[in-house]
Amino acid sequence: MSVTSQTLIRVRYAETDAMGIVHHAVYPVWMELGRSDLLRRLGDGYARWEAQGVMLSVAGISLTYRAPARYDELVTVTTRVREASRRKLVFAYEVTRDGVRLAEGETVHIVTGPDGRNRTLPDAMLALVASAL
Amino acid sequence: MSVTSQTLIRVRYAETDAMGIVHHAVYPVWMELGRSDLLRRLGDGYARWEAQGVMLSVAGISLTYRAPARYDELVTVTTRVREASRRKLVFAYEVTRDGVRLAEGETVHIVTGPDGRNRTLPDAMLALVASAL
Amino acid sequence: MSVTSQTLIRVRYAETDAMGIVHHAVYPVWMELGRSDLLRRLGDGYARWEAQGVMLSVAGISLTYRAPARYDELVTVTTRVREASRRKLVFAYEVTRDGVRLAEGETVHIVTGPDGRNRTLPDAMLALVASAL
Amino acid sequence: MSVTSQTLIRVRYAETDAMGIVHHAVYPVWMELGRSDLLRRLGDGYARWEAQGVMLSVAGISLTYRAPARYDELVTVTTRVREASRRKLVFAYEVTRDGVRLAEGETVHIVTGPDGRNRTLPDAMLALVASAL
Repeated sequence: MSVTSQTLIRVRYAETDAMGIVHHAVYPVWMELGRSDLLRRLGDGYARWEAQGVMLSVAGISLTYRAPARYDELVTVTTRVREASRRKLVFAYEVTRDGVRLAEGETVHIVTGPDGRNRTLPDAMLALVASAL
Repeated sequence: MSVTSQTLIRVRYAETDAMGIVHHAVYPVWMELGRSDLLRRLGDGYARWEAQGVMLSVAGISLTYRAPARYDELVTVTTRVREASRRKLVFAYEVTRDGVRLAEGETVHIVTGPDGRNRTLPDAMLALVASAL
Repeated sequence: MSVTSQTLIRVRYAETDAMGIVHHAVYPVWMELGRSDLLRRLGDGYARWEAQGVMLSVAGISLTYRAPARYDELVTVTTRVREASRRKLVFAYEVTRDGVRLAEGETVHIVTGPDGRNRTLPDAMLALVASAL
Repeated sequence: MSVTSQTLIRVRYAETDAMGIVHHAVYPVWMELGRSDLLRRLGDGYARWEAQGVMLSVAGISLTYRAPARYDELVTVTTRVREASRRKLVFAYEVTRDGVRLAEGETVHIVTGPDGRNRTLPDAMLALVASAL
């Protein structure tokens, strides 16, 4: 059964732009918060992964924007694992406000070491992430 | 014959993250700079479009990351128009450093008014953008 | 008796820089979150102020940094009103982590309308803010 | 004779906020660009300092905002060295647009190693910075 995390975010004034809405480059940052929360919920959290030399480098991102968010609104990022293998992870995200979908997206990650080189995900971490599928 | 613009960007320290490389959410901002430069090259620039009530709302974005950028490096964003119609524009981008491709991406835009509602692109603006195809 | 607000913030990966710590330009954003929370606690919140044509333009900021914050840490911004008059407000902030002070700062605000021109703070709003002194 | 650097910056859409102007937390980022340019002008640039284990940690910042900047405008950051010693450097900045002053500020830096501990500035670097006083 798929595990998801829900991250509640209060929109910051600094996140808005001259159109009066949240700038589109903010959503990848919110998605990263969601991913961070999902990993924390599944285990030690990504800070611990990094301390053990396991990085999730972002190899791709895609996003569809459906409705704008505005300053001071509360938005929710729902995050789930879409694919998990020893070399690649895919996460999926929905951003909603009061049940209305504002955006959805996906990030693709390659497992690397602190030197930026590809490596494989340790078995225990893979099992953790795969348990959320 | 396709028109492109080239935008030279010096990587800011604030754009790096704890991995020592440029954070992935910075690339949409660089692509926006590229789009801005391309529109300026084609005519009056996007600031003038906005002053006339024509907004290009971002409806979608996708990006593939191939190699990292670091503080103080000079990167180039090459921007081109991929599709142009009265309701929708698509731009394509390449980010390179010394000829090495770091990332490529695409943004999809819906034409809206200042109220966020869909509208159509005035003929003169469409002709301008279409001339770059 | 002075009213303060406490804002709990989880450090975002995007907020770190190549030194491995939170970039110094992030603190003004955190302070703005604190100010936003304090105004919400005192009444309707700043979004309502703006809707009524009352803006708090930032006229000055100062910050002293004492210790770094890192990804995934929980930091607290404690915000208070330092001065309140019809034309000018001053807020003071402390950023702490587990009781350790990371930074402290101050922002000075001039009351303006949506056109950017100076105006005076309506009595009800001034009373609200002054009640926190 | 005091050496200054001039950094020309095209305002990014992402740097604006819902007030239609550049968000105040962007100015520290612009000042950092100015500081980076001044050090490059004086010698090897800050990237080389870091490679040699010399960091300029930001210990304090202050800014006064006089007039707003808007999307697509060209602003100039003029940077100079105000104080230089083996443990502490102070830089001063002016942000202008067409000769009109938009903001001025100052940053205070403590010399540290990559571990965040205080260290002293190597003589050659101090001489370089002091030559700009």
